[in-house]
Amino acid sequence: MKATILYGPRDVRFEEREDPKITKPTDAIINMVATCVCGSDLWTYRGISPITEPTPFGHEYCGIVEDVGNEVRNIRPGQFVVGSFAISDNTCALCRDGYQSSCVQGEFVSGAQATLLRVPLADGTLVATNDVPSEPLIPSLLATSDVLGTGWFAADAANVKPGKTVVVVGDGAVGLLGVLSAKQMGAERIIAMSRQATRQKLALEFGATDLVPERGDEGVERIKELTKGLGADSVLECVGTREAMMQAINSTRPGGHIGYMGIPHGVALDGEHLFYSHAHLHGGPAPVRRYLPHLIKLVLDGKIHPGKVFDLTLSLEQVAEGYRAMDERRAIKTLLRPSENGKRGGRDGA
Amino acid sequence: MKATILYGPRDVRFEEREDPKITKPTDAIINMVATCVCGSDLWTYRGISPITEPTPFGHEYCGIVEDVGNEVRNIRPGQFVVGSFAISDNTCALCRDGYQSSCVQGEFVSGAQATLLRVPLADGTLVATNDVPSEPLIPSLLATSDVLGTGWFAADAANVKPGKTVVVVGDGAVGLLGVLSAKQMGAERIIAMSRQATRQKLALEFGATDLVPERGDEGVERIKELTKGLGADSVLECVGTREAMMQAINSTRPGGHIGYMGIPHGVALDGEHLFYSHAHLHGGPAPVRRYLPHLIKLVLDGKIHPGKVFDLTLSLEQVAEGYRAMDERRAIKTLLRPSENGKRGGRDGA
Repeated sequence: MKATILYGPRDVRFEEREDPKITKPTDAIINMVATCVCGSDLWTYRGISPITEPTPFGHEYCGIVEDVGNEVRNIRPGQFVVGSFAISDNTCALCRDGYQSSCVQGEFVSGAQATLLRVPLADGTLVATNDVPSEPLIPSLLATSDVLGTGWFAADAANVKPGKTVVVVGDGAVGLLGVLSAKQMGAERIIAMSRQATRQKLALEFGATDLVPERGDEGVERIKELTKGLGADSVLECVGTREAMMQAINSTRPGGHIGYMGIPHGVALDGEHLFYSHAHLHGGPAPVRRYLPHLIKLVLDGKIHPGKVFDLTLSLEQVAEGYRAMDERRAIKTLLRPSENGKRGGRDGA
Repeated sequence: MKATILYGPRDVRFEEREDPKITKPTDAIINMVATCVCGSDLWTYRGISPITEPTPFGHEYCGIVEDVGNEVRNIRPGQFVVGSFAISDNTCALCRDGYQSSCVQGEFVSGAQATLLRVPLADGTLVATNDVPSEPLIPSLLATSDVLGTGWFAADAANVKPGKTVVVVGDGAVGLLGVLSAKQMGAERIIAMSRQATRQKLALEFGATDLVPERGDEGVERIKELTKGLGADSVLECVGTREAMMQAINSTRPGGHIGYMGIPHGVALDGEHLFYSHAHLHGGPAPVRRYLPHLIKLVLDGKIHPGKVFDLTLSLEQVAEGYRAMDERRAIKTLLRPSENGKRGGRDGA
């Protein structure tokens, strides 16, 4: 098979690798139909999160099941499946609480930007559709695997409810799908903090009611003006920098909720500042598996179109360009299609 | 009147000051029946939170109303009242949300370790009892003013529910009343982290089911042993140091809740560590006014005895010794009784 390997900062290679095999009876092997580049991949691409050896990358995926181990019960070859970026047994106490991304048997997927992928704990990690979905649905189904699930968790963690006022910090793909999620959850007012025209346009399309291009103290001032001086009920922090977290804390109404989804990099929160903000704070790796059945249904029913965040589609062998385009902010998010396996999988099913 | 003034680190004086007067039509003046020293007063006493000028201290109080401004409607002279340490109008949007300690007109009380106290926004800040309560109830009623209200908020912010497992970090008066609060809220298991015999005894009396004297990594290990390796559903952080916050984060089950009530001093939270903990975090100055009617009723009905945290009672003029005893951990919490006004107030009513 061919797989994407990061060798170091800005060194992405697409190489021949040995085909993955069933190594545990709970494994599945899937033929990739579509995968993509995650904003979080860029931390490594940019050298901010260093790697010590060449590492297979990618953790968002959907595909056709090729093979399963002999203890797999719910997934069978030929099915179209979407999986979470976090592997889970979906039966332990933490999974039952809805925190599958902290499963006691959990690990994070790596190596999905490839033509084939081994998925451990297949029964607990993958969700199969009844039929192989039509081609136009593939991008939106792929989005449920992480980027939508993460935006959804951001909104859920920020306690978005009907009638509430929501601020979304960050106009990357997670932030934009945070807007979509808040809209689905019935928010009345959704303020997207964005200064780039194409992202602003998508935010409005997903349900944003207001756009705030200002940042820092100016941005906070604008939010206060829009919220009777009090701040928003719910704030989604979808970046992971200290500036974004401060923006979120200072934009939240006392007693309000912050859902933070950007993996914090060098963020030291001032305990006293947070204390006097009176905000609720919740975040972490999104328990996508909790939301997958609901999100897949919304996509199949044509209720949401999260695949619109993919504004660049490349064949998988062009993966290095996919990283570059996102790094340089020429693309919001890059969709990657394995030319051959894609044909064997979703495209034939279209 | 006589009032407690902090002049600097460990310099507490009890001095003659001018009697407070009604300065706004929403003010009340109360004759102090009982007041006390707060753990948070020690930050200044120890010089950690410096002051720039001699400052009247104390913010926990109950007393008899002496006079009210002409816009005060619900409070009248002669009534016994308990007030929150945070002044609130109890009508603004944030008060209606239950965040009276972030009231848009809010300020913090100072100067309650005195024979007389002016309380602004009396209607929104004070709660009157139907009758002047009997003397044995005074310590417990005083406790509702801050230390119990704060422990109660810690348990509420930590989402304590019937059947849950709770850890309380800190065995000061707030932590001990956090134990009492968790018990009232129906927690099944309450693990008090305490290593001092008198505090352990009180924790058990208030409802603790387990005692953990270990701290740091050892303490976390003990909590994990007691919770099937997962951590507690709810953790109350009642200290305010980095060590206590780390103890709390590492003792919480993924998806669990931390209520933090110690005013953070020099606490820089590692965003990434918090992210992967999957904990909910909520805290801040306790909105005691939200809970006061309920807590006062529990005390008057004899359901709870939070006044037991006062293990030293002094006359108000001995206030300096009251601070010393707490600073040296000879006392959990010092109750102060103005000898003369006390007679005019609660003692006569006993």
